[in-house]
Amino acid sequence: MKILALDTSAKVSSVSVVTEDRVLAEFSAHLNLTHSQTIMPMCEQLLSCCQIPLEEIDAFAVSRGPGSFTGLRIGISAVKGMAYALGKPCIAVSTLDALSFNGRQFEGILCCVMDARCNQVYNALYESNHTSLTKLTEDRALFIDELSQELKERQKPVLLIGDGAELCYNKLNGILPDLVLAPENNRYQRASSVGLVALEKAKQGEFISPSQLIPQYLRLPQAQRERMKKLEEQK
Amino acid sequence: MKILALDTSAKVSSVSVVTEDRVLAEFSAHLNLTHSQTIMPMCEQLLSCCQIPLEEIDAFAVSRGPGSFTGLRIGISAVKGMAYALGKPCIAVSTLDALSFNGRQFEGILCCVMDARCNQVYNALYESNHTSLTKLTEDRALFIDELSQELKERQKPVLLIGDGAELCYNKLNGILPDLVLAPENNRYQRASSVGLVALEKAKQGEFISPSQLIPQYLRLPQAQRERMKKLEEQK
Repeated sequence: MKILALDTSAKVSSVSVVTEDRVLAEFSAHLNLTHSQTIMPMCEQLLSCCQIPLEEIDAFAVSRGPGSFTGLRIGISAVKGMAYALGKPCIAVSTLDALSFNGRQFEGILCCVMDARCNQVYNALYESNHTSLTKLTEDRALFIDELSQELKERQKPVLLIGDGAELCYNKLNGILPDLVLAPENNRYQRASSVGLVALEKAKQGEFISPSQLIPQYLRLPQAQRERMKKLEEQK
Repeated sequence: MKILALDTSAKVSSVSVVTEDRVLAEFSAHLNLTHSQTIMPMCEQLLSCCQIPLEEIDAFAVSRGPGSFTGLRIGISAVKGMAYALGKPCIAVSTLDALSFNGRQFEGILCCVMDARCNQVYNALYESNHTSLTKLTEDRALFIDELSQELKERQKPVLLIGDGAELCYNKLNGILPDLVLAPENNRYQRASSVGLVALEKAKQGEFISPSQLIPQYLRLPQAQRERMKKLEEQK
């Protein structure tokens, strides 16, 4: 089975082709360009390099969120389009589950964090002991202070992964005794991690149709939050 | 400073652009194609994606070995050519030092191993404690049995990285109590790791000219080994 995986949930654009046998190829870019400019040319170049026509892809995987509202919509739309046109299934992967794959060689708590602004992060915690990985929380949006308190109580080494990792490292360093920042080339979203999680889901038959593929934002968009706040104040 | 980094030391072709600020982009392919077919188009696509003309690259980094004799010659020749044409410096990185970068979030011994055939591996050992990395051995070629003995004596958790990692894992699992195989998307050569090690070298001023860039094979090519064996027998 060949899976084409995409991640556009934050600043990195990333595409990868994975099979049961190996990660065939991966192309990632961490630029100040919009994903709508980069992601489709990157897909084309990746498949051309692998000498795989798009029709040979068996399933399309994508980070379904949490993440940037616009970023998620671009990746999900691209995958919906390709899967719908070719009549192939999709696999939706939690952005945080994919990030946790980057840290599988760490022993302790994998703390996947994405910057959600306003002192909040999108986060999930995982316990890794080299051979197995257990998800300890749901995907959620919470304040960094709340996360700090929770990590303190767990009393284990913590690896920070994601585009909120540096932010949390600067806030929590000194407060948590054994805090590690994931190395630069393993800190951000990687489509190969999305693809490898998708392979596990494919084994469980967790395919969905293009129309079932929807972003999971975890929070309302800012405009809606502000409107609700105003309505609340008017009461 | 913008560094273009290449790795063609084994089966993976990988190219990356790194700066002091971040890994700008990385493109890796693990195919059954020769590097001479893949590496230059990958460089071109990577730079085009980053919107960086080749002339803006400040230094060219490459895995200088150990590794496949033909693979090393292709990567080194490509880098020599570009650096010579543009009058820019080169940075030579040990393939094993670059591989060790893939494992920096592990606590214990990083055992970088590349399959050198005939029950031998190219190897170097590093001790990692999350915040610092110490190289424990020189780059060397040795028998897997010798490596096994050495790792047993060190009595620490071991992370296997490289295209010889699975071979060693299958031989040593059960013999060593705490043996970990690097995850599939962090097991093989990554040009971003070459680039990140090159950045550290650039800070120390470790630049060389294109003509000073030579492969480090660690062993004589098979043809020469066989000839020497015959000469030995004739004595």
